[in-house]
Amino acid sequence: MAAVPITADVGGLPPEFGLIGRHFRPLAGPAALDLEDDAAVLAPPPGRELVMAADTMVSGVHYLPDDPAEGVGQKLLRVNLSDLAAMAAEPLGYLLAVSAPADTPDTWFAGFAAGLAADQAEFGLSLLGGDTTSTPGPITLSLTIIGHVAPGQAVRRRGARPGDEVWVTGTIGDGALGLAVSLGKLADPSGFLRGRYCVPSPRLGLPLAGRVSAAIDVSDGLLQDLGHLCRLSGCGAEVEAASVPMSEAARVAGPGWLAQRLGGGDDYELLLAVPEGRGAALAEACAARGVPLTRIGRFVAGPGAVRVLGEDGQPLAIGRHGWSHF
Amino acid sequence: MAAVPITADVGGLPPEFGLIGRHFRPLAGPAALDLEDDAAVLAPPPGRELVMAADTMVSGVHYLPDDPAEGVGQKLLRVNLSDLAAMAAEPLGYLLAVSAPADTPDTWFAGFAAGLAADQAEFGLSLLGGDTTSTPGPITLSLTIIGHVAPGQAVRRRGARPGDEVWVTGTIGDGALGLAVSLGKLADPSGFLRGRYCVPSPRLGLPLAGRVSAAIDVSDGLLQDLGHLCRLSGCGAEVEAASVPMSEAARVAGPGWLAQRLGGGDDYELLLAVPEGRGAALAEACAARGVPLTRIGRFVAGPGAVRVLGEDGQPLAIGRHGWSHF
Repeated sequence: MAAVPITADVGGLPPEFGLIGRHFRPLAGPAALDLEDDAAVLAPPPGRELVMAADTMVSGVHYLPDDPAEGVGQKLLRVNLSDLAAMAAEPLGYLLAVSAPADTPDTWFAGFAAGLAADQAEFGLSLLGGDTTSTPGPITLSLTIIGHVAPGQAVRRRGARPGDEVWVTGTIGDGALGLAVSLGKLADPSGFLRGRYCVPSPRLGLPLAGRVSAAIDVSDGLLQDLGHLCRLSGCGAEVEAASVPMSEAARVAGPGWLAQRLGGGDDYELLLAVPEGRGAALAEACAARGVPLTRIGRFVAGPGAVRVLGEDGQPLAIGRHGWSHF
Repeated sequence: MAAVPITADVGGLPPEFGLIGRHFRPLAGPAALDLEDDAAVLAPPPGRELVMAADTMVSGVHYLPDDPAEGVGQKLLRVNLSDLAAMAAEPLGYLLAVSAPADTPDTWFAGFAAGLAADQAEFGLSLLGGDTTSTPGPITLSLTIIGHVAPGQAVRRRGARPGDEVWVTGTIGDGALGLAVSLGKLADPSGFLRGRYCVPSPRLGLPLAGRVSAAIDVSDGLLQDLGHLCRLSGCGAEVEAASVPMSEAARVAGPGWLAQRLGGGDDYELLLAVPEGRGAALAEACAARGVPLTRIGRFVAGPGAVRVLGEDGQPLAIGRHGWSHF
């Protein structure tokens, strides 16, 4: 029993505290209590319901290991924000779980945090808490997003009715083509497609409540996500292939990419069921917020089937319906 | 352009939906909307603040790959519940992010979900939402827990004052010894130590608000976690080694394990700063709820140092202060 006093003082903190202090504490809002405590404490906005979702990104699965860390941070936040957008909710804050190999360079964390910081400012939310751990596997990032909505006003996936029209925001297929660009399968002189894949634009702030029957964000591919809406709503849908809006860059890629555009994922646009006759007014309201809205088809009676129609009104065969993460 | 109709019907869902339906949907509460939607919608308890934390467990880092999946599910939930307990908050629900290799057997998910189900029933909360993804790395589990507390009543880490006493719940060191058992370094005929390591007991429901100056849960080791309290409170602490409560199994292990007991992690007991003279009444209130409370030292003036005193009142040298996850 030696007489040497032991100390657990400020200078002796383990490395995880340095990482948190350098990169994540600057992201923390008031409710995070400076990330000092076991948990965050948040007074929910009075009279609102909370909307909560979690999405994970794994290096080599959901993004390429060489993708810039700043964009990885942005995409992680934005795919979660897109889930709030699909429910017509507003963002409040998020919790972040980061598992990374012990040799992950500090510059990676700095870039990742810079991407989060930029998007916190853009979308108006802050870090509430989280966890950092080491892993022998690839970088694994889980984000839990917290939003809010007026009571009873969250837009659901179930609710589409035969006769409703199918509308989408923005352009469809850029995400899948951007992935093809990343994999060297497609040219992208302007960088537009790759930008759409790496840093999607969550469609927050649209006046959907009370004006749409159902909504979903297009994360796994237009046809698959439309299939979810149909299955949960107990109806089918017909999509006019020629009506699906495409970007100029997708148009340049050519008609051979139709299956990827309709079946690939990562668009993070919103797919909406709009009662007949109400689309034009909604499109005008969205356009006023800078988001184009396009009618691409209609919901029909029947057991959950999605059909894609060619310009002659006949069904097309498309081989790939979407992307499964597991 | 063939005339074959394409369908994205119920039978054609990708495998992740089967996994969720089989194992995770039965865990979902009303706010989870049957896990059908992009996010959960939860009406927060009126007049309460929300308390939120996230903790990750990685196979091979935070548990052994051969550990029974049921216990992994229980530990994941319980380490998060322990964060709520440290803030004196009550559980409400949780979101779950699971990344697993594609060849993870379905029986692993079944066991994992069974562990979660058992503890949901025991602790009164339910699944709100989450994400499942594949990974080329080890199973990685992130859980975000949501709790609630009366406004202003969350107990913080900062707040201990010189003169306050250091108290702990339960017994200290079983977690570290249980890990030693798991690694084959210590015998454990009764299985008690391993049980404490694998399935900790979060100390929820204790009447701490207004009766303690500060609290933290012992996850990284008694001395390191006490060091956090001291650093944030701007004071130091002295711990009497002989006063630190140990289980009968730890006593049998012998005095050679002192450094592991005080420095090792995974106890998930609560470490409390209690104003002088108020410990006995608090201990009585906790005992009435089945949780023993023991005074182990006191907070002192000074810059965040933790000293361990032997039976002669002289400082002891202890080599290991805790466990860093990164």
